[in-house]
Amino acid sequence: MRGLHFDSKLELRTDLQKPKAQKGESLIKVVLASICNTDIEIMKGYKNFKGILGHEFVGIVEESDDPNLIGKRVVGDINIACGKCDLCRIGLYHHCRNRKVLGIKDKDGAFAEYLTLPNKNLYIVPNEIKDEEAVFTEPIAAALEIIEMYHVKPTDKVIIIGDGKLSQFITQVVALTGANLYVVGKHQEKLDYLKSKANIILLDNLDRLSLKNKFDIAIECTGNEGGLQLAQELVKPTGTIILKSTYNFLATLSPTDWVVNEIKMVGTRCGPMEAALRLLQRKLISTDYLISGIYSLEEYQEAFSKKNKLKAVIDLRK
Amino acid sequence: MRGLHFDSKLELRTDLQKPKAQKGESLIKVVLASICNTDIEIMKGYKNFKGILGHEFVGIVEESDDPNLIGKRVVGDINIACGKCDLCRIGLYHHCRNRKVLGIKDKDGAFAEYLTLPNKNLYIVPNEIKDEEAVFTEPIAAALEIIEMYHVKPTDKVIIIGDGKLSQFITQVVALTGANLYVVGKHQEKLDYLKSKANIILLDNLDRLSLKNKFDIAIECTGNEGGLQLAQELVKPTGTIILKSTYNFLATLSPTDWVVNEIKMVGTRCGPMEAALRLLQRKLISTDYLISGIYSLEEYQEAFSKKNKLKAVIDLRK
Ligand SMILES: [Zn+2]
Ligand SMILES: [Zn+2]
Ligand SMILES: [Zn+2]
Ligand SMILES: [Zn+2]
Repeated sequence: MRGLHFDSKLELRTDLQKPKAQKGESLIKVVLASICNTDIEIMKGYKNFKGILGHEFVGIVEESDDPNLIGKRVVGDINIACGKCDLCRIGLYHHCRNRKVLGIKDKDGAFAEYLTLPNKNLYIVPNEIKDEEAVFTEPIAAALEIIEMYHVKPTDKVIIIGDGKLSQFITQVVALTGANLYVVGKHQEKLDYLKSKANIILLDNLDRLSLKNKFDIAIECTGNEGGLQLAQELVKPTGTIILKSTYNFLATLSPTDWVVNEIKMVGTRCGPMEAALRLLQRKLISTDYLISGIYSLEEYQEAFSKKNKLKAVIDLRK
Repeated sequence: MRGLHFDSKLELRTDLQKPKAQKGESLIKVVLASICNTDIEIMKGYKNFKGILGHEFVGIVEESDDPNLIGKRVVGDINIACGKCDLCRIGLYHHCRNRKVLGIKDKDGAFAEYLTLPNKNLYIVPNEIKDEEAVFTEPIAAALEIIEMYHVKPTDKVIIIGDGKLSQFITQVVALTGANLYVVGKHQEKLDYLKSKANIILLDNLDRLSLKNKFDIAIECTGNEGGLQLAQELVKPTGTIILKSTYNFLATLSPTDWVVNEIKMVGTRCGPMEAALRLLQRKLISTDYLISGIYSLEEYQEAFSKKNKLKAVIDLRK
């Protein structure tokens, strides 16, 4: 089969082995798959992954030992848990010690004609949701993990740092809480997409003095150290910094500042897929504007190029 | 008056000016004052403080414009807020932008015959509480701030890292929650004091493999980077690290670990004095064993020496 294989460099291969569904698994024919910042990080060396990239997808189950799944349109939880380790036994499947992660760790991903996943990782997509929406279920779930793990109150003053792909989903999700929401970023055109949901601020125009220590919650989604420092600056004493990006660096930080200012730092990663589907079904998340291009596998270099300001989608049927 | 003055070095002076109570303040004759690790940090340069050291005390109000306070035995909140800044206006007095802190920042402290504090910082000590208990109200309040800021549940598995002064108070306070409590430290004799409250583990005997990721909450009170790293190792994914020490270093940390493991970090500092007095009144905190020596001001070098394994107390009546 055809797919995008990464092994120190990304290449289109046409000789890849079609995967076989094992016991408890389904074989899924991928329809759409989208590019995430984590894919870019992997191409820079994050996680030392070798194999087929891609973890955001929607597809059709072709083979399964669960007859209810066959022919169904599905999205998938990307964490494949062993079910046996001490963390699985206390229900922390997303943190399984032996976990494989679709297109990220020890498991071939979605930028290929076929993938396999355990049946229990699959969620049937309701008919009202288009493929072009369903492909984003995973990043919407990741955004939802913020409000799953931390109580964002309707009266909270919240600032989101960054205006990229991640921020677009997070801003939409956090706006649903009713919180008084701000987004600060470097790109006016990306910020403009969010102006119906939040107060938008171009970084160059940020009044650091008058906004210092003014926010109950700062959500860092730039993935760089400057973003983290800005979060520490903007959050009020006793406030909370939510970390959403993975960082390919070690940061030099001052834990004393967190003690003296009684700051909470909350790391969040993957989230609840079913809740993400419910938001899509209720038409509470806009995705159309996020798609900056739809490409065939053969056009992968264009898909991965910087011209895609937001989400590039690969259509496996092309 | 006599007092311990710090200006690049600590010295006993007998020519210090007796402070004058300003409007809204009381003049307090200090009875007992105890030495805290923060005093030791200040002597190493923390906060660039110059003046009279000491912030844990019990004393008698000699002069006050509040007639209800005169002659009363009191303890004091060490944070002196301006009452006017944006943080004071939202009730975050402990985080006042212009705050002075007794014996720590811009305000002479308790290792002297007299100190002054605003009347609203003072708490009258109930008769059932001895001076030798009341002197520890401030560090007990600081320990209580952990359970004020974070919900430690009776079913949580909690590990406290460190067995020093701070840990002795924190262990006693957290034990009250009913949590399944462990303390790991370097000193068998200090750990032994805590064995009726917690499972004690000598660091050399710590089975890092079997305890890896086993705790809901890790409370770091060593103030060194090794302690922070051990906390990250022992806490389970989705767990919480509570930071209690001030650190005189910048730490090199990996924020990605917090995101991937969905860790919360909670910094906590000063706490509720009235609740600390209630615990002492209810005889729920033992302090007698903590006092490793009572000294006169003249014996300050002995009081500050390393022979004091736990709390050295200075008796200002001597
Ligand atoms: Zn992703
Ligand atoms: Zn597992
Ligand atoms: Zn102290
Ligand atoms: Zn203030």
